[in-house]
Amino acid sequence: MTQTNTRPRIRLKPKANARGMRHGFPWVYANDIVADRRTRKIEAGALAVLEDENRAPIALVAVNPESKIMCRVLDRDLDARLDAAWFESRIRRALALRERLFNTPYYRLIHAEADGFPGVVIDRFGDACVIQPNAAWAEAHLETLTEALVSVTGVTTVLKNASGRTRGLEGLDDVNFTLRGTAPDAPLPVPMNGATYMADLTGGQKTGLFYDQRPNHAFAAQLVQPGAQVLDVFSHVGGFGLAMLAGGAGQALAVDGSAAALELAAQGAQTSGSADRFQTRQGDAFDVLTQLADEGAKFDVVICDPPAFAPSKQALDAGLRAYERVARLSASLVKPDGYLGLCSCSHAVDLGRFRDASSRGIGRAGRQAQLIHTGFAGPDHPQLPQLAESGYLKAVFYRL
Amino acid sequence: MTQTNTRPRIRLKPKANARGMRHGFPWVYANDIVADRRTRKIEAGALAVLEDENRAPIALVAVNPESKIMCRVLDRDLDARLDAAWFESRIRRALALRERLFNTPYYRLIHAEADGFPGVVIDRFGDACVIQPNAAWAEAHLETLTEALVSVTGVTTVLKNASGRTRGLEGLDDVNFTLRGTAPDAPLPVPMNGATYMADLTGGQKTGLFYDQRPNHAFAAQLVQPGAQVLDVFSHVGGFGLAMLAGGAGQALAVDGSAAALELAAQGAQTSGSADRFQTRQGDAFDVLTQLADEGAKFDVVICDPPAFAPSKQALDAGLRAYERVARLSASLVKPDGYLGLCSCSHAVDLGRFRDASSRGIGRAGRQAQLIHTGFAGPDHPQLPQLAESGYLKAVFYRL
Repeated sequence: MTQTNTRPRIRLKPKANARGMRHGFPWVYANDIVADRRTRKIEAGALAVLEDENRAPIALVAVNPESKIMCRVLDRDLDARLDAAWFESRIRRALALRERLFNTPYYRLIHAEADGFPGVVIDRFGDACVIQPNAAWAEAHLETLTEALVSVTGVTTVLKNASGRTRGLEGLDDVNFTLRGTAPDAPLPVPMNGATYMADLTGGQKTGLFYDQRPNHAFAAQLVQPGAQVLDVFSHVGGFGLAMLAGGAGQALAVDGSAAALELAAQGAQTSGSADRFQTRQGDAFDVLTQLADEGAKFDVVICDPPAFAPSKQALDAGLRAYERVARLSASLVKPDGYLGLCSCSHAVDLGRFRDASSRGIGRAGRQAQLIHTGFAGPDHPQLPQLAESGYLKAVFYRL
Repeated sequence: MTQTNTRPRIRLKPKANARGMRHGFPWVYANDIVADRRTRKIEAGALAVLEDENRAPIALVAVNPESKIMCRVLDRDLDARLDAAWFESRIRRALALRERLFNTPYYRLIHAEADGFPGVVIDRFGDACVIQPNAAWAEAHLETLTEALVSVTGVTTVLKNASGRTRGLEGLDDVNFTLRGTAPDAPLPVPMNGATYMADLTGGQKTGLFYDQRPNHAFAAQLVQPGAQVLDVFSHVGGFGLAMLAGGAGQALAVDGSAAALELAAQGAQTSGSADRFQTRQGDAFDVLTQLADEGAKFDVVICDPPAFAPSKQALDAGLRAYERVARLSASLVKPDGYLGLCSCSHAVDLGRFRDASSRGIGRAGRQAQLIHTGFAGPDHPQLPQLAESGYLKAVFYRL
């Protein structure tokens, strides 16, 4: 008797897209499932066999009756066991992609569904990894996952970061935890694009640093002529600013609402050897943009990388207005023939809408623009083709 | 009396989008214009003042009564004179962008509307430039344009390439011409991404080489591990193949229907010092892909960069089927954990449709995929934000 037979079964309603599931769609929503007494009793994080309306099996899934995404496809092999070998083989495959792409071990190692780990994000910082187990099944298998991670990568420190918003939707707690080694008592230096960033793995946002903007940082650095004045708005730990300094900028001003983030940015500038060319201004970005305009400040390159202004479809219109406002305010700070880079990390705002809002804002600032580059998240953030529409990060670069 | 007063006037119909024109849309279609005896008498390539329905002026435009795009915006200054200074200032501005982006003078210097030269493309190959004056106004001002080009860039050879399909739509001839210097009697070496390409400026397709794929060539080269076997289908002069060899590939096979293109590719491999690792196969790409599958050939990286399968909206469905077929045939030639890059240069196929067709083809080949990168034309191919939807080149990269 195969193990399959002992696993609970979950049946799709006739209206559900069983064909899409067979072709790789990774999620089943609660309202596509025939809910009976047995399915309601399944524990969050348990495994089950997903069946179509005719009881033909489709995939091994992780179940969470508390989540709107009630099932997440784990394996096409219905008999798969989530043991050390299972985790190791997926981590090894993810590692091979990153080792192809990057010369140093600083990257997103696991990017959820696309790397075969639904809801799980793992970022690597040299000998340390930070896991965000944002789905119940991963929480349930966290020890095996951690052991496999150490075994495949050789990292000595593994931290659990439980601050992800989606953990709440999965009914999970928000308690951070040191899984292996010792949590570093100081920010770790992270080399990227010729600069060194400081990542606070225990107190920072998400996993301490955003790797997703790496290719867009690199593009911005390419736009900098020696001695250029550059502005990095919503700078976080200095992503664009430090990369542009490494690219030859004469002076960078980083603006952020968080004093802690700016302190890390300043430490990064120090470590990168560009502290004398780096300034910060703490405050609401819209206020600071207005202040800078009042001061008559002008920059060769301006980059704005705001938080998600449209985190949901409901927030779409307000979000687009905010993106347009960012574009308008920042465009007026760009010197003639200077460059403006605008980013959005809102799932709900697609590239066309974001570009239109940005172009409109630039037009309202009375500036003519050439669109010279469109970038997305880096290749250590792969996507499932079936979810490619949901690519959240967009960056558009203009010359004004 | 300003010169404006002597220029013919062209009036928009009330239904035309005068507001869009004021905000930078660069074209007026013939059916948006109030056609009277005077407008019908305007010569192809002449200048006129575009007015809204209330006779308020909008812009200085170039007129071509023979073209569906009857007016192209040239300047917001109604009194602008298309003299040497006008051409020089626009070329200088375009050159500044390219000099920021590239270390060597090999790039698209003028990319039509976005660089302020509606319908005009100029590619630079070191000391030589190739002009495609694909609009009547540019044909009429070709001598001033050429003189300004030489004056600003210092190039010694300027060729006119009249093979552009759109010249027919503008009622222009297809006669190539040497405008300055001497047409080179051999292909010119062009350095890109560590390889050397051979560009045939007089006999090749368009302007002899496609610069637009440069960043996508670079991304493909990054995917190559030392010694990798790579396949470049629809290779033209070896764009992806030579870049991957420069990136460390052990063996590259280039497939193209054109013996002349493959000969240039082989010369490029010779000049790049990788001739012993470069092979070609001439033939219909679909046939060769099928042959390779029959031979059991497998590659670490496969790239397909076909001609536009959907050059028009009418050809959309057939084009999408062709893209799906390319994806299906090529996916089956990729080794496990190998990479597949698929490109489209069809205006009519947007990114979402192209990605879906590609992903579907990969699925039909029985392969699972991660989408790791989406690329567009390089930044020496800027776009007007108002025409950004028309971005023709898309490249999607998968790991299978």
